Amino acid sequence: MPTGCATDRLPQAASTRTDIRNCSADPPYLPPTAINTTARLAALRGTMRAHSVHAYIVPSTDAHMSEYIAERDSRLGWLTGFTGSAGTAVVTWDKAALWTDSRYWTQAERQLDCNWELQRTTWIKSIGLWILEAVPVGANISLDPFLFSIDTWNSYSQALHGSGRTLLPIETNLVDQVWGDQRPPPASSEIYSLPAAFTGSSWQEKVAGIRQQMEQHVRRPTAVLLSGLEETACDPGVGGQTVGAGSEVSFLAGLFNLRGNDIPYNPVFYSYTLLTNTSISLFVDEMRLSAAARQSLRAGCPGPLCVELQEYGQARAHLRRYAQGNVTVWLGTEYTTYGLYGVIPQEKLLEDSYSPVMLAKAVKNAKEQELLRAAHVRDAVAVIQYLLWLEKMVPQGQVDEFSGAQHIDMLRQSEHNRGPSFQSISASGLNAALAHYSPSNRSSRKLSVDEMYLSDTGGQYLDGTTDITRTMHWGVPTPLQKEAYTRVLMGNIDLSRLIFPPNTAGRVVESFARRALWNVGLNYGHGTGHGIGNFLSVHEWPVGFQSNNVPLMAGMFTSIEPGYYRDGEFGIRIEDVALVVEAQTKVPFLTFEVVSLVPYDRNLIDLSLLSLEQIRYLNAYYETIRARVGPELQRQRLEEEYRWLQRNTEPFPLGSAATATATLGTLALASLLSALLAGLQA
Amino acid sequence: MPTGCATDRLPQAASTRTDIRNCSADPPYLPPTAINTTARLAALRGTMRAHSVHAYIVPSTDAHMSEYIAERDSRLGWLTGFTGSAGTAVVTWDKAALWTDSRYWTQAERQLDCNWELQRTTWIKSIGLWILEAVPVGANISLDPFLFSIDTWNSYSQALHGSGRTLLPIETNLVDQVWGDQRPPPASSEIYSLPAAFTGSSWQEKVAGIRQQMEQHVRRPTAVLLSGLEETACDPGVGGQTVGAGSEVSFLAGLFNLRGNDIPYNPVFYSYTLLTNTSISLFVDEMRLSAAARQSLRAGCPGPLCVELQEYGQARAHLRRYAQGNVTVWLGTEYTTYGLYGVIPQEKLLEDSYSPVMLAKAVKNAKEQELLRAAHVRDAVAVIQYLLWLEKMVPQGQVDEFSGAQHIDMLRQSEHNRGPSFQSISASGLNAALAHYSPSNRSSRKLSVDEMYLSDTGGQYLDGTTDITRTMHWGVPTPLQKEAYTRVLMGNIDLSRLIFPPNTAGRVVESFARRALWNVGLNYGHGTGHGIGNFLSVHEWPVGFQSNNVPLMAGMFTSIEPGYYRDGEFGIRIEDVALVVEAQTKVPFLTFEVVSLVPYDRNLIDLSLLSLEQIRYLNAYYETIRARVGPELQRQRLEEEYRWLQRNTEPFPLGSAATATATLGTLALASLLSALLAGLQA
Repeated sequence: MPTGCATDRLPQAASTRTDIRNCSADPPYLPPTAINTTARLAALRGTMRAHSVHAYIVPSTDAHMSEYIAERDSRLGWLTGFTGSAGTAVVTWDKAALWTDSRYWTQAERQLDCNWELQRTTWIKSIGLWILEAVPVGANISLDPFLFSIDTWNSYSQALHGSGRTLLPIETNLVDQVWGDQRPPPASSEIYSLPAAFTGSSWQEKVAGIRQQMEQHVRRPTAVLLSGLEETACDPGVGGQTVGAGSEVSFLAGLFNLRGNDIPYNPVFYSYTLLTNTSISLFVDEMRLSAAARQSLRAGCPGPLCVELQEYGQARAHLRRYAQGNVTVWLGTEYTTYGLYGVIPQEKLLEDSYSPVMLAKAVKNAKEQELLRAAHVRDAVAVIQYLLWLEKMVPQGQVDEFSGAQHIDMLRQSEHNRGPSFQSISASGLNAALAHYSPSNRSSRKLSVDEMYLSDTGGQYLDGTTDITRTMHWGVPTPLQKEAYTRVLMGNIDLSRLIFPPNTAGRVVESFARRALWNVGLNYGHGTGHGIGNFLSVHEWPVGFQSNNVPLMAGMFTSIEPGYYRDGEFGIRIEDVALVVEAQTKVPFLTFEVVSLVPYDRNLIDLSLLSLEQIRYLNAYYETIRARVGPELQRQRLEEEYRWLQRNTEPFPLGSAATATATLGTLALASLLSALLAGLQA
Repeated sequence: MPTGCATDRLPQAASTRTDIRNCSADPPYLPPTAINTTARLAALRGTMRAHSVHAYIVPSTDAHMSEYIAERDSRLGWLTGFTGSAGTAVVTWDKAALWTDSRYWTQAERQLDCNWELQRTTWIKSIGLWILEAVPVGANISLDPFLFSIDTWNSYSQALHGSGRTLLPIETNLVDQVWGDQRPPPASSEIYSLPAAFTGSSWQEKVAGIRQQMEQHVRRPTAVLLSGLEETACDPGVGGQTVGAGSEVSFLAGLFNLRGNDIPYNPVFYSYTLLTNTSISLFVDEMRLSAAARQSLRAGCPGPLCVELQEYGQARAHLRRYAQGNVTVWLGTEYTTYGLYGVIPQEKLLEDSYSPVMLAKAVKNAKEQELLRAAHVRDAVAVIQYLLWLEKMVPQGQVDEFSGAQHIDMLRQSEHNRGPSFQSISASGLNAALAHYSPSNRSSRKLSVDEMYLSDTGGQYLDGTTDITRTMHWGVPTPLQKEAYTRVLMGNIDLSRLIFPPNTAGRVVESFARRALWNVGLNYGHGTGHGIGNFLSVHEWPVGFQSNNVPLMAGMFTSIEPGYYRDGEFGIRIEDVALVVEAQTKVPFLTFEVVSLVPYDRNLIDLSLLSLEQIRYLNAYYETIRARVGPELQRQRLEEEYRWLQRNTEPFPLGSAATATATLGTLALASLLSALLAGLQA
């Protein structure tokens, strides 16, 4: 599933569609999916006036910058009606606007009422400029400091700097005040220990590793604050976006080998940790810990490997007391809230963009790699069962998007499975043009042999998290659909087979996934891939291909997922999870080993567009699928699926590769000729 | 010529060479090229003690962050002996260290004596850590605030933050004090107006354009400060480097259509400008202006298009007075010195990374594009004359690096030429492994048919600036040399023919120039290209392929220059200048039009490595060369050169392209097989 950073602004076709709002009509047109927010806005504005606040900024994140948030934390969704995972709302006394990225533009037009302007960017600078035009000099612009990272705070601060307006943090959340007793209660489910068979190393080993980093640092920090928040910002140079994705929350879960259910899809729980050289304070609701979990945490008590359990709400007060001593607190500014940051005196801070623990988590050890590989073999079986089932059922007109999503979720259920890793994306025809569309029971399009279908799903297994997208057509695709699919596949292949030096940033190689599309003037508006956890977040920072990701290192897992979307028509995405491994070069360069093991749709591949190297790569990949998934299908006695796999992993003939002008594809041919002519004319 | 940011750290072979120092020998070995800095260091330390300074930071830049600096400003060179264009020195009471990037590591080992540690990075954080280890808590760390941009100042400030050391700006330059009357005098040559035939638009039009941007900005700045300094920093994620390149100095020259000779190779002059909505103050030595230049600047007096000439040294005082009013000053933090920045109150600042004028300069209008194209046709004639001359003279053993460089400089001399655009790089054999090697009269290697030869040269013409690199072999290259050359060429081609969306950052596409090398575990340690001016800087920011460059837009010129260097053996670089143009796609995507028009060395191309598309591109490019340079050769009656051009631009046969495993090249074949095996074993 793609992450947030849109890298371009896709044109929106003018439309007379009835699924989106039309606020310039008289009277304004609202689709049934739009939410009436007039009363909520009026109430919020009342509270704002009471606090002398002229503009209030509401982010989509919770206090831990989790990607999936509890209903209780969906302040943006409740206030605006917009339920996309990334966005920022600003409300003034007479205006209201929502900023979100291209994944969500259509969804926003379906869910917002006409109280809201939609701003098609998430650049904080653009939010700042809008605010400057909307509120007078002398105005207060407020936000909840526990919902903003220090970096995001600084960006707003800079955007408003010298403008005569004041950026004023208010610890009481104004939306919560208005939401009142309608707001859902906090999580209360059990927090449990992960069995040793499913962990790469003990929590004591992980703590020792962090303390070693503390000792080796020239500034000798006495503590690391894991505030469980990550706020990440894309490169403003490419129409910058801001997205959040759960990270330190999942690191904390990973650190202690604990899991919980506080937020959907990610098996994590809300907490903060202050890890000092002599003590460990875990701020969490102690009553929720299972007996085994409590025992594991308390086994080393008293001593440096004893976890002191403290109330979640006490983190700020405890940190303030700790910071009075002769200490240095190491933290990552990208994911520490301004609310916590503010209690530590400047001279006692050791700031990095990311705390040192992030990298430790991103590089999986050999055991963790094996666990993730095993989860992907199991996952491939479920997806293959699904593809075969679709092949049989779709022509009979018996599958819709919702029942399809239910079916793949069901197929994944097994001893090791703990549910889906995100809400399944199951999108037919034009719905797939919305990169993050998910069907509901009451609005679900029927799958048909006349349309493309996109399935982006994943599972949480005790040994790993999966995330895979396949796009299918069971009838006769149009030439454009086939060419676009093939070019998306070429991008997936070109990036997957790339050999690159150690410490290369994902950002500088992700264009390889786009080039085949660019060549004919096509592109996609989302990121090319994201890190993925071991039974943790499906979007696990800081690995990936965006500007704020860390350089690629052996042992990291990332998705590779180019796509192409044609608004109102169809959508294509081909996503695999890949492990960064050493390449077989003389010097230790790196490449990818794709661990997702499901073949692509042969019906949509135009072999004549592929180069010889691309076909060779594809055949080798299919060999690997046969070798790894075949035996598992046989073990599970899935004979029909086994035969389907053999059929769908037949080697492609090398003789079909693109070797002559005539096979360049309609789109490319025109542009090649024009380019040659231009060169001559120049 | 490549710019500074090394993107990897190339391994240095252990060596018993006599051309570099060996400080661990007993006694230490120094080559004759090393400079004895003991007395200079002792004198500087005396001054430091007098100022209570424990560590003093000396950059390679001047107060305008020019890439080429006047002798008078070569403080780093005088103090250390190291004459490379980018570096930072830090001197403490008992230590001294120099930081520079991989281009200059060998040169530094040749020029430094054993007073100096060489640090192979330019990451400010690493400089900060070194200082923290070298000086005690309580120490003062000082620098000249007029030699550091505000961003660089902030980086040092952050690196030392909370460490108990103080970063203390001292306006008196301590190196200048020690240098004394040995320091060369300031520039005094004439500053002249560029004839209208060679300018894209009048200075009045340019001023009007900037004022329009001021009016349209939501903050309504009342002035733009052009401080004539640019400090650029590479992405720390890839072993970040800091380099400087002349930019606003050249913008000021460009703004007023004036030229000077204050620094070598770039026809610019030292100045500051404060451009307000009603006035223009140019801080420059008025006595140096030609009569025509003065008349042009004063033609609109009095009035908003009257340039008030003020003393260069008065800029700070004038700015301080201006900032007392009800004003807002717009500036770019990347190239404003901390020395000037400090006099403007925070609330009156409008800060951007780059001032708005940078982009205006980077996009050349139609007339400027035509001027630059014309300069490149003229330049191609000179380079082709040189290549033919080398072909005849080298086998006779009559050319060395120095005489070669002199010859190409001479060939460029013509009516429009105003000298070379940088010191010619002319490097044979192992000398070419130093990306920026330049020969001198007393150390110059003979060119030979047994070695590769690299020539990286450019000219300043009234209508444009050129920069081109060709690498040659007149005998039998080794298989490795031929494969490496071909892969460098493949990289040049792959980037040149790339089609990409508007507003794509160069940083995210420069890997296309590396992939063919990466594929077999090779790489290069410098940037892939840089902007270039119209009779201005050969390295013109902010265009290029590094992380701090602006997105590519139609009308920008950039070099494309992949390379490969094998320390102690040979060096390859293939560099062309290219214009960003609209591609012939249905949507307005972009691509490059290569305006350098000189064929590559056929003797070094292994056609069997090239894809069909690469050969097609090459043949189309050669067609363009014939069409544009052929007539000019004939016009100049250079018949032998014309025949040489026809010979060297013969179309390559398409049938030779890489289409089978057997033609993949020795390096690639091994890695392909291994990768396939690994996939099967996984």
